[in-house]
Amino acid sequence: MSTAHIVSAFDRDLEAAQARVMRMGGLVEAALLDAAEALDRRDEDLAARVRTGDQAIDALEEQINTQCAQLLALRGPTAGDLRTVLTVMKIAAALERSGDYAKNLAKRTAVLAQMTPVPGASGAIRRLAKAVVQMLTDALDAYIRRDVKLAEDVRTRDRDVDQMYNSIFREFLTHMMEDPRTIGPCMHLHFIAKNIERVGDHATSVAEQVIYLVTGEMPGDDRPKVDSTGTRD
Amino acid sequence: MSTAHIVSAFDRDLEAAQARVMRMGGLVEAALLDAAEALDRRDEDLAARVRTGDQAIDALEEQINTQCAQLLALRGPTAGDLRTVLTVMKIAAALERSGDYAKNLAKRTAVLAQMTPVPGASGAIRRLAKAVVQMLTDALDAYIRRDVKLAEDVRTRDRDVDQMYNSIFREFLTHMMEDPRTIGPCMHLHFIAKNIERVGDHATSVAEQVIYLVTGEMPGDDRPKVDSTGTRD
Repeated sequence: MSTAHIVSAFDRDLEAAQARVMRMGGLVEAALLDAAEALDRRDEDLAARVRTGDQAIDALEEQINTQCAQLLALRGPTAGDLRTVLTVMKIAAALERSGDYAKNLAKRTAVLAQMTPVPGASGAIRRLAKAVVQMLTDALDAYIRRDVKLAEDVRTRDRDVDQMYNSIFREFLTHMMEDPRTIGPCMHLHFIAKNIERVGDHATSVAEQVIYLVTGEMPGDDRPKVDSTGTRD
Repeated sequence: MSTAHIVSAFDRDLEAAQARVMRMGGLVEAALLDAAEALDRRDEDLAARVRTGDQAIDALEEQINTQCAQLLALRGPTAGDLRTVLTVMKIAAALERSGDYAKNLAKRTAVLAQMTPVPGASGAIRRLAKAVVQMLTDALDAYIRRDVKLAEDVRTRDRDVDQMYNSIFREFLTHMMEDPRTIGPCMHLHFIAKNIERVGDHATSVAEQVIYLVTGEMPGDDRPKVDSTGTRD
């Protein structure tokens, strides 16, 4: 009886923390899409909103960490429950970093607005952001539904994102060679592309956490890496 | 009596995890310095050793996480003890990411060896790496000694590292404008500089964890940010 009570109390606490993680995920996805749109439309007001919005994302991670720490202290979960709590904290950390990348993208929008436009660049970056946000959505979905198949799918899609990034990298090199005025903006745009690609890596690590949570085994490095620029971090 | 026994058992487990964190820190510091030296001397063998060495760093993080999870499950620490265990896991995560940056630096050494050398670049990057490794050493030292003053010092030094990075960024821009053949190499060197600067951010977050651990308060964003390139992540 009392065990049943403790278990359900654990589940209630866990659900509260998970709800915050999902809200955090929603904010991060919106921030990435808004930041990419702000870049594309050179909309500095939207970029400014993304920058200030990051505080709410950081605050949620703080709350999730506190909540999980209390949960560990009060409920003393073991085995699968413990693993789940640690996974929730890892997902929150991945989302917090992804939010930072969106904030940084928004920061550069203001800088880039003063520079020579690079043809086709912001459109390509917007497509990259869309693909990465979809990975993030599906990775969180896979967590909630404990869906290993969807998690595996997210892992494989990281390859497409790497390929998109690589072609953007080469495009920028060509622009810089052909028109030195694009060197400055391309340096910033390249960072933006790289940071969005990194969000894809975070989505992938969330997906891998899900696989570990369900199967008890961490997927190995069998995921094909596209590394033609040598820039994989 | 039994409480005393539980406490000392907790301390034994914690010390074992901390010992691994310290070993991890040593490996990461060596990897960063070796990678910077390999770049400077165009030593591909040394770069290759850094790349393979990252496996040992990743393995240590795995072991630390398992150890800490067991510790949480078996000892059910609360309050300060719980906070300490979570801090150990956060420090291990920061070190693992820093090791990845060293590995990525080593990867680019092979790519850069095929490209036009950029005058003064690898020397500047080596100085940046030295400054960052010192921050990492001191942040870990501050953790072991619970030395808030040293931790605060690490935080302020992050500003110098940002300044070093900013001047490197401008130097690369100039090189690329003056000699288009340096555009390719400068893109890679710029990433290397940015990634080393990020290790400085990780050292700073470790220092902030120490301050939180001792004072119970997370230091605010009062740390002056040098952001003249708009590239701060």
